[in-house]
Amino acid sequence: MVETVETYDGWYALHDFRTIDWEKWQAASASEREKALEQFHSLLHKWQEIEDNKQGSHGLFSIVSQKADLMFMVLRPTMKDINKLENEFNKTALAHYTKPAYSFLSIIEKSSYTKPTKNPYEDQNMLSKLYPKIFKTDYVCFYPMSKLRGETNNWFQLPKDERGRMMFDHIKTAKPFTEDVKRIITGSMGLDDYEWGVTLFCDDPLQFKKLIYDTRFDEVSAKYGVFGSFYIGCHLPNEEINPFFSVK
Amino acid sequence: MVETVETYDGWYALHDFRTIDWEKWQAASASEREKALEQFHSLLHKWQEIEDNKQGSHGLFSIVSQKADLMFMVLRPTMKDINKLENEFNKTALAHYTKPAYSFLSIIEKSSYTKPTKNPYEDQNMLSKLYPKIFKTDYVCFYPMSKLRGETNNWFQLPKDERGRMMFDHIKTAKPFTEDVKRIITGSMGLDDYEWGVTLFCDDPLQFKKLIYDTRFDEVSAKYGVFGSFYIGCHLPNEEINPFFSVK
Amino acid sequence: MVETVETYDGWYALHDFRTIDWEKWQAASASEREKALEQFHSLLHKWQEIEDNKQGSHGLFSIVSQKADLMFMVLRPTMKDINKLENEFNKTALAHYTKPAYSFLSIIEKSSYTKPTKNPYEDQNMLSKLYPKIFKTDYVCFYPMSKLRGETNNWFQLPKDERGRMMFDHIKTAKPFTEDVKRIITGSMGLDDYEWGVTLFCDDPLQFKKLIYDTRFDEVSAKYGVFGSFYIGCHLPNEEINPFFSVK
Amino acid sequence: MVETVETYDGWYALHDFRTIDWEKWQAASASEREKALEQFHSLLHKWQEIEDNKQGSHGLFSIVSQKADLMFMVLRPTMKDINKLENEFNKTALAHYTKPAYSFLSIIEKSSYTKPTKNPYEDQNMLSKLYPKIFKTDYVCFYPMSKLRGETNNWFQLPKDERGRMMFDHIKTAKPFTEDVKRIITGSMGLDDYEWGVTLFCDDPLQFKKLIYDTRFDEVSAKYGVFGSFYIGCHLPNEEINPFFSVK
Amino acid sequence: MVETVETYDGWYALHDFRTIDWEKWQAASASEREKALEQFHSLLHKWQEIEDNKQGSHGLFSIVSQKADLMFMVLRPTMKDINKLENEFNKTALAHYTKPAYSFLSIIEKSSYTKPTKNPYEDQNMLSKLYPKIFKTDYVCFYPMSKLRGETNNWFQLPKDERGRMMFDHIKTAKPFTEDVKRIITGSMGLDDYEWGVTLFCDDPLQFKKLIYDTRFDEVSAKYGVFGSFYIGCHLPNEEINPFFSVK
Repeated sequence: MVETVETYDGWYALHDFRTIDWEKWQAASASEREKALEQFHSLLHKWQEIEDNKQGSHGLFSIVSQKADLMFMVLRPTMKDINKLENEFNKTALAHYTKPAYSFLSIIEKSSYTKPTKNPYEDQNMLSKLYPKIFKTDYVCFYPMSKLRGETNNWFQLPKDERGRMMFDHIKTAKPFTEDVKRIITGSMGLDDYEWGVTLFCDDPLQFKKLIYDTRFDEVSAKYGVFGSFYIGCHLPNEEINPFFSVK
Repeated sequence: MVETVETYDGWYALHDFRTIDWEKWQAASASEREKALEQFHSLLHKWQEIEDNKQGSHGLFSIVSQKADLMFMVLRPTMKDINKLENEFNKTALAHYTKPAYSFLSIIEKSSYTKPTKNPYEDQNMLSKLYPKIFKTDYVCFYPMSKLRGETNNWFQLPKDERGRMMFDHIKTAKPFTEDVKRIITGSMGLDDYEWGVTLFCDDPLQFKKLIYDTRFDEVSAKYGVFGSFYIGCHLPNEEINPFFSVK
Repeated sequence: MVETVETYDGWYALHDFRTIDWEKWQAASASEREKALEQFHSLLHKWQEIEDNKQGSHGLFSIVSQKADLMFMVLRPTMKDINKLENEFNKTALAHYTKPAYSFLSIIEKSSYTKPTKNPYEDQNMLSKLYPKIFKTDYVCFYPMSKLRGETNNWFQLPKDERGRMMFDHIKTAKPFTEDVKRIITGSMGLDDYEWGVTLFCDDPLQFKKLIYDTRFDEVSAKYGVFGSFYIGCHLPNEEINPFFSVK
Repeated sequence: MVETVETYDGWYALHDFRTIDWEKWQAASASEREKALEQFHSLLHKWQEIEDNKQGSHGLFSIVSQKADLMFMVLRPTMKDINKLENEFNKTALAHYTKPAYSFLSIIEKSSYTKPTKNPYEDQNMLSKLYPKIFKTDYVCFYPMSKLRGETNNWFQLPKDERGRMMFDHIKTAKPFTEDVKRIITGSMGLDDYEWGVTLFCDDPLQFKKLIYDTRFDEVSAKYGVFGSFYIGCHLPNEEINPFFSVK
Repeated sequence: MVETVETYDGWYALHDFRTIDWEKWQAASASEREKALEQFHSLLHKWQEIEDNKQGSHGLFSIVSQKADLMFMVLRPTMKDINKLENEFNKTALAHYTKPAYSFLSIIEKSSYTKPTKNPYEDQNMLSKLYPKIFKTDYVCFYPMSKLRGETNNWFQLPKDERGRMMFDHIKTAKPFTEDVKRIITGSMGLDDYEWGVTLFCDDPLQFKKLIYDTRFDEVSAKYGVFGSFYIGCHLPNEEINPFFSVK
């Protein structure tokens, strides 16, 4: 019998990681740098208006380690909005001092292993998860993941009940972290190479490690979790952008 | 006993993904940019004449995410046509503002798990699938794929009947999407690294996710599907090319 | 008991794939381009003399797709000849408009699963296979391959008879293609990363796909074949080199 | 039942590997080089003050082989400290003569397979391990590692007792090296792609090989160890930095 | 019970592969090229004095295929010697016309599956293997390798006797090649990513293929051998260096 997957899908999401060419940036004249930052701030201002109008959300983060220097996470109602936003950013002066490091394209997704009692698109709680404001915690952790399709252990060949049970156990392990660690789960089947994206938000980055550590022993993670790269970032609020780019 | 695979093969196909060097493009003079776009439009005009004469087809897409910026999909009667087209594009001015990101070489293929009742090359419906016009939907999704040749699960060691049954189930799962999501399947054994290419066309990109999600639970996808990268693009009609490349 | 592998080995082979820097080429002056092509033609002329003297053979191909733009296949009596040829090509002006894309180092090899009835090095038929002239068909297909050494399926742990039987079946599947598709098999154990190289020659590239497709269901390919990248090229005879490189 | 992993976590750690662009460095003027080194020494001086105040530690190493030329290992109380340190280094003149080669982000971790008898955060011995001074031995060896989550052998699905027993055996094998080879173990789940980082310190690099060789036969390493790249470095004390960078 | 591995370790070894930037080399002035070669010859002269004093050995090879153009193999008593040698080479003018292609760091190793009858460090035969002079044959073949730690077949979980038996069989297969093909085995556990390096020396490169081919059917190679890339080089004696670099 054909199983139909029921998911509730919200805004499209782009995670865009960039490496800064610091030498080029420092070699630029003070006025070029100033102009590039002004243009970037006015782009962010436009994005903020969109967020204020509940037509999307965005966050800017300084990535720790050599994997990247910056990460934008942007949420938008349509794929075309994402495409336009990219095109617009690519043409800014600041973009020319950066190189692409990684990106992830997905859509906010709530899967339902248990049938919802009311129409999810009329449920205020569900709607706030499908069209969220990106959390303004001090730290972010992002990683893409898939479920194993091994020759012995194959997630997609398990009965729905068994998958449901394992997901339920997984949620139980993660429970103690619910308050401290906020999360946005996005689905990317057919959109990007991994099947899901996990974005975690917390004021204490040690909680990321503890959450991943504890859940790694869950059957679903231990046996079926296929993880991509882990990225850690520090939130970069508007007022810290210029200091971040400042040249002494 | 030796099994001979019967396939009906149509036009050769090239999917050509490019990354734009935006900085270089913006550093070019307005007249250089104008000249490059004019030359590109006249190339597209030539391609359109070929399409009008039913000697091939083509589509241009703006790829979302960092994987690429542009994708051409071109269909042509001979491999030499594909080779010449590439050589011609490589020498255009616009090409010098792009870098290769990925390409996929294949040929439109209809495999027959059930014997056709009439000569496929005289069947108008079959011919329209072997020599199609590329769909002008808002979005495209492309991914290359192979069938698993694992030590336990090996597609190419299954009896033909079993393969047929699984393909039939797969088609059944995809059935609800038939109207909304158009597809062009191309074969690439001996031509490129994956065995098939799947190009999906739809006005709503969420349908790509839903289709891939639902079919992932099919035995054939779950157990035997080996997937390459997924690329999502927005159709770029001729009149949107100049705005796409415009520099403020 | 130690098995000794009997192979008959002919000329050394280098497959050398190059990507052309078209922008740099077009930016060169007409006289630089002319000089580079003249020098390249005189190198090819020298290679032709070697071929005429039966001291080797060579072919030049324009590779389709982004994998490469050009491929030389050269056959020579000694490894030192290959090394010198590379060194000489690297110093030409044309080489500086190309970048290495891939190479494969091997030696023409005839393995014998059945004992030959006469001394192979006195058998004219065998000699013409060990020291062949590269075929001048319209298309070429090259791929490197190994045999699986999996934890369950391990080619090199099978009894010789079983390997012989599977190879025999494989040859039977490929039989219908013998006339249309010419092949040169080279061995690369200890010389390069894959164990063998397969170079196919045909006037109709669809035959490459059909041959690979049919043989993929053979036990030896399905269970034990480990394939590298597939490269498709169009033969580039001397008189087409200048048009190929022409700049409008 | 949900297992909660108890770990004691100390300072955050960044291993930052860099490749030097020697040609660019030699092409710089003597005064540019001098200025870059002075700025770098004053940065190291600041880091030393932090170490003297027990607010972190750092070490500088010249990496052997082409994998990298330099490696900093830095320990800091917060992730933000690590982020700022990176940002500051990226803006130095010396950084512009280097390229990122690899980095590893983690946190010093003591896991407890046996319950500690006293509060570890009041145990002076434990505290000296959580907030250590980087050892000043002649050589360093760094490698990241994970535990296997295979379809048959899955570390994270073993009972805790069995894991404890194997870790105990592993420690026994490593015992003879305790005095000569100092180690700092860091955890990176949720922070980087491997799960742990191992940094070994010794005056005789042969001991690194002997230790890894002996322990590779342990059940835990043989069956469950998944190792990343191994990096070997020579300690670069302050007084050897200028000779290291000197240009004859 | 803990197994202690007994190995006898000699000189440290670095294999350093380089790609030559031929265009840059040809663009240099004749006097720059001459100076660079003179400086390189005087470095080789210094290395020769070290070899004459039995404090190390070295060999220079021209690598066939695109994998690299040059390979140095150098042997030295300490890791610091290797580090200094690298640092010195990196600062030469010639180095700036090359790019790193691959490197391998290891130490000459004789493992003993059978207990030696006399103290190996007093055995002249053993000493000549631990502190060898690099062979001056026409050709070299290098490849790194590890032993499989699969979920079913795991070298490091086999009883010592079984490993000994397989190694003994392996040596028996290689026996017929002993005279023609000289070898230097180096160990790299804890030092580099593969566990061993094999460097073969012979006047006839076909023997490399025959040796690897024959031994591939041994249980130890077939089931447990994990091979890296294979590199083939032609010995480059001092008097051939200038012709190799000559520009017509």
